[in-house]
Amino acid sequence: MWRLHQHPLCPFSRKVRLALGEKGVEFDMVKVAPWDAPDSFYSLNPAGRTPVLQHREKKIVLADSQAICEYLEEVSDERPLILGTALGRAEIRRLVALFDEQLWGDVTGPLMHEKYRKRVHLRQGPDSRVLRSAMRLLHEHMDYMDWLIDNRRWLAGAQLSLADFAAAAQLSVIDYLGGIEWSDHKGVHEWYRVMKSRPAFRGLLADKVEGLPPPRGYNDPNS
Amino acid sequence: MWRLHQHPLCPFSRKVRLALGEKGVEFDMVKVAPWDAPDSFYSLNPAGRTPVLQHREKKIVLADSQAICEYLEEVSDERPLILGTALGRAEIRRLVALFDEQLWGDVTGPLMHEKYRKRVHLRQGPDSRVLRSAMRLLHEHMDYMDWLIDNRRWLAGAQLSLADFAAAAQLSVIDYLGGIEWSDHKGVHEWYRVMKSRPAFRGLLADKVEGLPPPRGYNDPNS
Ligand SMILES: N[C@@H](CCC(=O)N[C@@H](CS)C(=O)NCC(=O)O)C(=O)O
Ligand SMILES: N[C@@H](CCC(=O)N[C@@H](CS)C(=O)NCC(=O)O)C(=O)O
Repeated sequence: MWRLHQHPLCPFSRKVRLALGEKGVEFDMVKVAPWDAPDSFYSLNPAGRTPVLQHREKKIVLADSQAICEYLEEVSDERPLILGTALGRAEIRRLVALFDEQLWGDVTGPLMHEKYRKRVHLRQGPDSRVLRSAMRLLHEHMDYMDWLIDNRRWLAGAQLSLADFAAAAQLSVIDYLGGIEWSDHKGVHEWYRVMKSRPAFRGLLADKVEGLPPPRGYNDPNS
Repeated sequence: MWRLHQHPLCPFSRKVRLALGEKGVEFDMVKVAPWDAPDSFYSLNPAGRTPVLQHREKKIVLADSQAICEYLEEVSDERPLILGTALGRAEIRRLVALFDEQLWGDVTGPLMHEKYRKRVHLRQGPDSRVLRSAMRLLHEHMDYMDWLIDNRRWLAGAQLSLADFAAAAQLSVIDYLGGIEWSDHKGVHEWYRVMKSRPAFRGLLADKVEGLPPPRGYNDPNS
């Protein structure tokens, strides 16, 4: 059976959980804190990062969420997530990279550090300037997502794709870490409610980390 | 015809140039400084980043080096670069991500900022602590590459692949920005000499940026 080495607040782990869930692949999970990982984790992934997808019987070890999602896409015919023409797939991958790198680098990563790692591991308060800058950049990202949703059925085009799951994975962590101000972003809000109601998403939203409960509404698809 | 919007010291632009060259795709180039890009560049790529690959007649605009390389792989049969079984391709993509994200984040990105942007654009000197830390991390990355090369014909396995070009693209920029201390890394050095002698690589090594000449040996495949 597949085993996912993951952290509950890691958006890349969440992206892979969603892809596995959508494709109906069975897996169990092991929790890893990548910033404090044991040597055994580095032997699975020299990059020392979550997620890692392992199949012990078949001696398979896969690392990097995008390499994992591309692999799942190649070996499974269930619910294609990188789908369409070569151009359509390039658009999906462009957006996945935008969310995985820029939404993460501008917003999710800084919030994780300030609101989770500092509080739970380093016992420090957050830096309010970093928080303000992250919230400002979040609004810019959500403006762009609003524009996409205004012009397309889903983020990358006519079909639900990995771009939607990559974006929703980041937003779900941002939402856990303090809630999102949805009032200026009705389009994204409506889209995110639909994402939250998918079966693969519901399990993920039930997860909690110790010492930091999620805000109200976080796991409610109607909120 | 294809047009690549690129910066001569951007390793992701270099990776795409190498892929286009290996596949024998004709293209011309436009230089963009992404940290100071005109509005027209944002309309091509809302992420504001190089590289962007455009085909004006066909009205195609592709952004993100990995999305571009996956696209080229899907539409061209020439010299496959993401090749082999699904597992082999996952290994190639894992290593591409390692070089594009971690080698870039630990070494190439900080050196670009300290040695190129500060000097040429901001007229400041580099921070020697940042340089020292980048050089230390470079040695760790090269130790890992030595280990790969000791155990495999090419970085990702028996075949030359996009992993080799992604790594060589980063190393070529690092080398431009101050030379690499090869003495402790004979395996990587030998491999890099072979990469440098490929036709697609030779054109790229002839490029210079104003105000910052490359060090001796930089574009010599025997050095
Ligand atoms: N591109 C990688 C990013 C993975 C990543 O950054 N994971 C974080 C946790 S959310 C991590 O392990 N950070 C620890 C580190 O970088 O040392 C992926 O998509 O899997
Ligand atoms: N993942 C992207 C990274 C591209 C990237 O970071 N490009 C740099 C130049 S080397 C850039 O445009 N930086 C400007 C910015 O991020 O604002 C890719 O592979 O294309």
